[in-house]
Amino acid sequence: MCGTDSPASINKGSLPSANGNGTRSPTCSSDRVLNLEQGDPSVFQSYWSKMEDKCTMVISGSQLMSYISDFTTLCWFMEPEFQEAVRRLHRVVGNAVVDDRYIVVGTGSTQLYQAALYALTSPGGPEPVSVVSAAPYYSAYPEETDYLRSGLYKWAGDAYEFDKNGTGPYIEVVNSPNNPDGTLREAVVTNRGDEGKLIHDLAYYWPQYTPIIRPADHDIMTFTFSKSTGHAGSRIGWAVVKDKEVARKMSKFIEMSTLGVSKDSQQRAAKIMGVICDGYKNFKSDELFFEHTRRVMAERWERLRQVVDRNQVFSLPKYPKQYCLFSGELIEPYPGFAWLEAKEEEEEIDSQKVLRGCIKVQGRTGSRFGVAQKYTRVSLLSNEEVFKEFLERLSTIKSMTSNGH
Amino acid sequence: MCGTDSPASINKGSLPSANGNGTRSPTCSSDRVLNLEQGDPSVFQSYWSKMEDKCTMVISGSQLMSYISDFTTLCWFMEPEFQEAVRRLHRVVGNAVVDDRYIVVGTGSTQLYQAALYALTSPGGPEPVSVVSAAPYYSAYPEETDYLRSGLYKWAGDAYEFDKNGTGPYIEVVNSPNNPDGTLREAVVTNRGDEGKLIHDLAYYWPQYTPIIRPADHDIMTFTFSKSTGHAGSRIGWAVVKDKEVARKMSKFIEMSTLGVSKDSQQRAAKIMGVICDGYKNFKSDELFFEHTRRVMAERWERLRQVVDRNQVFSLPKYPKQYCLFSGELIEPYPGFAWLEAKEEEEEIDSQKVLRGCIKVQGRTGSRFGVAQKYTRVSLLSNEEVFKEFLERLSTIKSMTSNGH
Repeated sequence: MCGTDSPASINKGSLPSANGNGTRSPTCSSDRVLNLEQGDPSVFQSYWSKMEDKCTMVISGSQLMSYISDFTTLCWFMEPEFQEAVRRLHRVVGNAVVDDRYIVVGTGSTQLYQAALYALTSPGGPEPVSVVSAAPYYSAYPEETDYLRSGLYKWAGDAYEFDKNGTGPYIEVVNSPNNPDGTLREAVVTNRGDEGKLIHDLAYYWPQYTPIIRPADHDIMTFTFSKSTGHAGSRIGWAVVKDKEVARKMSKFIEMSTLGVSKDSQQRAAKIMGVICDGYKNFKSDELFFEHTRRVMAERWERLRQVVDRNQVFSLPKYPKQYCLFSGELIEPYPGFAWLEAKEEEEEIDSQKVLRGCIKVQGRTGSRFGVAQKYTRVSLLSNEEVFKEFLERLSTIKSMTSNGH
Repeated sequence: MCGTDSPASINKGSLPSANGNGTRSPTCSSDRVLNLEQGDPSVFQSYWSKMEDKCTMVISGSQLMSYISDFTTLCWFMEPEFQEAVRRLHRVVGNAVVDDRYIVVGTGSTQLYQAALYALTSPGGPEPVSVVSAAPYYSAYPEETDYLRSGLYKWAGDAYEFDKNGTGPYIEVVNSPNNPDGTLREAVVTNRGDEGKLIHDLAYYWPQYTPIIRPADHDIMTFTFSKSTGHAGSRIGWAVVKDKEVARKMSKFIEMSTLGVSKDSQQRAAKIMGVICDGYKNFKSDELFFEHTRRVMAERWERLRQVVDRNQVFSLPKYPKQYCLFSGELIEPYPGFAWLEAKEEEEEIDSQKVLRGCIKVQGRTGSRFGVAQKYTRVSLLSNEEVFKEFLERLSTIKSMTSNGH
């Protein structure tokens, strides 16, 4: 049983403390650490392997050489084929309003988040604008907001807290479905006049993860190729923006940050989105991307809940079924992450450390998301082999606090 | 003759003032504005067209999907093939020392410049660190340094000025060969103890533009796929870095800025660099990239100097011949930009406005580079058709200040 090979290294009967040495024996379970900290979307790779010939991108040596895609448009470095593909995909899925909206391409939604902060602030204010998001919030927001010590904006933490005690202009980031906990969200700060602005991070608002309850229609909505189709290595994201001036400032940010966005990847994204949309047009059921990937995610969640229910050490969020406009059915969310909460009462339980120490599963601690460390986020987007190994290891944990796990 | 079709719109006998309406009649010369403001490297496209089959990049739908390239390395999002290709290219060209150096990939050298600023500064200093570069300096540095109002660093202008009057910690950016004026440069600020740090922007230190006088060996050197091979649309750059901690911080910046760099483009860059290096290995003279492109640049400079000498309105920098280690010959620099200086004595002459107004050539004014507006930078990297049209139009200018041009 896990943890029994080298008892000297284990704090018997109690959890390793947050600051103590929580590393268990390396012979505990397998030697290999399963890295499930990032949301690397390998789960979708098998689908694309089957689509190989349709999706193959061919770029000759003399193509896509210019900085410029179309100097007559606001986002002059965006490939027209990419923009068309994005609009078509949203129309097929019905997850966002794109008519009469501006599209801005970015180097992943990470860059677009920063572009939006830049676009929503102006130099010369007395204080940097407060940026908030409801806890548990995406763990990268604080760092991405503060690493350059910008005079334009600063991270101000949990939006619920800001709603109670914060003052002054703010930007609230609404991440829906939320990373890490998978819930569908609305803004939480009560707006005071025109002090508040919103960014909607809709990276996971796709049918494999969540019911599509309405076509989203917010001022700034960001999406990413990484989570929609699984192509994280291409670093492609896009924003759907209502206001022309905001779209222009976001484009300007990307110009100053990276002088545009890889055309190779824009063209590849356009091709792959086109293959998805063609599938729905031709309706060959064995090829439909979102049905296939939702089945995979549903099956993973079923297997995960069985293990979690059986060993009674963690709990998982319960999600209500909702009517999905895309599938025409009442469906459950199947988030890309398991948001594991240790069932023990103590808030101090460090479930990340237990998972890492005992079964060599690397998740990300709740404290990175602004909540207690009894929570750990674990990616469910790995390939099947890793996911299966994760479940096998998880099933060996019998208790958070005793030597029996 | 240019400017004679609609004399009412011309300020006879004098230049349009900087604030006045300098736009000449739209029937002046051709209606089409030649945009030579950016250094879009279309000149190299014809070479790559001939190499088509060797350079064609093929990416299947299931390849390059992960965020991660190699988690065991410092720059975990860098494709190993890209890193190898970069080292091989520098060894073939001999323009930079790469043994025992770290390579960091970026979304163009624009991102790497910012990564270097981040890596060379630390939060908590009393003042942002001054960033300087000798005028005329690359026009994008001020904006790329200041757009986020960082508390870590701030643009402080001309390095010569800073050397005389500046105080405190600083970063000097040494751009060599320099954009806009093509000169080979050294740092100019006299170092005071350890207050100064250097970034060497070597975007144009390739044999088609300049003699390779030695393998560059500085603390941080940045290069770009855009200028080395002409593939600007891929947004790929790299840094060669001596210090491990600096390389680690630069990688961390890129992680926070864009969560990595397009793998599609990294792989394409690796392939194209490989084709160049294979050419030198196999030594088929009709295929050699740098010889071909240097011939093209040399020929362009010859044609340009003929026109400029003939109409006696502008002057161009004179460059000394230097021994090039790569070609084994004494050769002249052939910069990617013409740095045109109006010969008239008045400093206020706005040569950008004259070029735009009279012959509809869009350059970039000297004032963007920190010097007088009698200077204008004009790209020489357009395709042949545009370059030829530029020379034809330029030859029609007979005077900066009279109606006779």
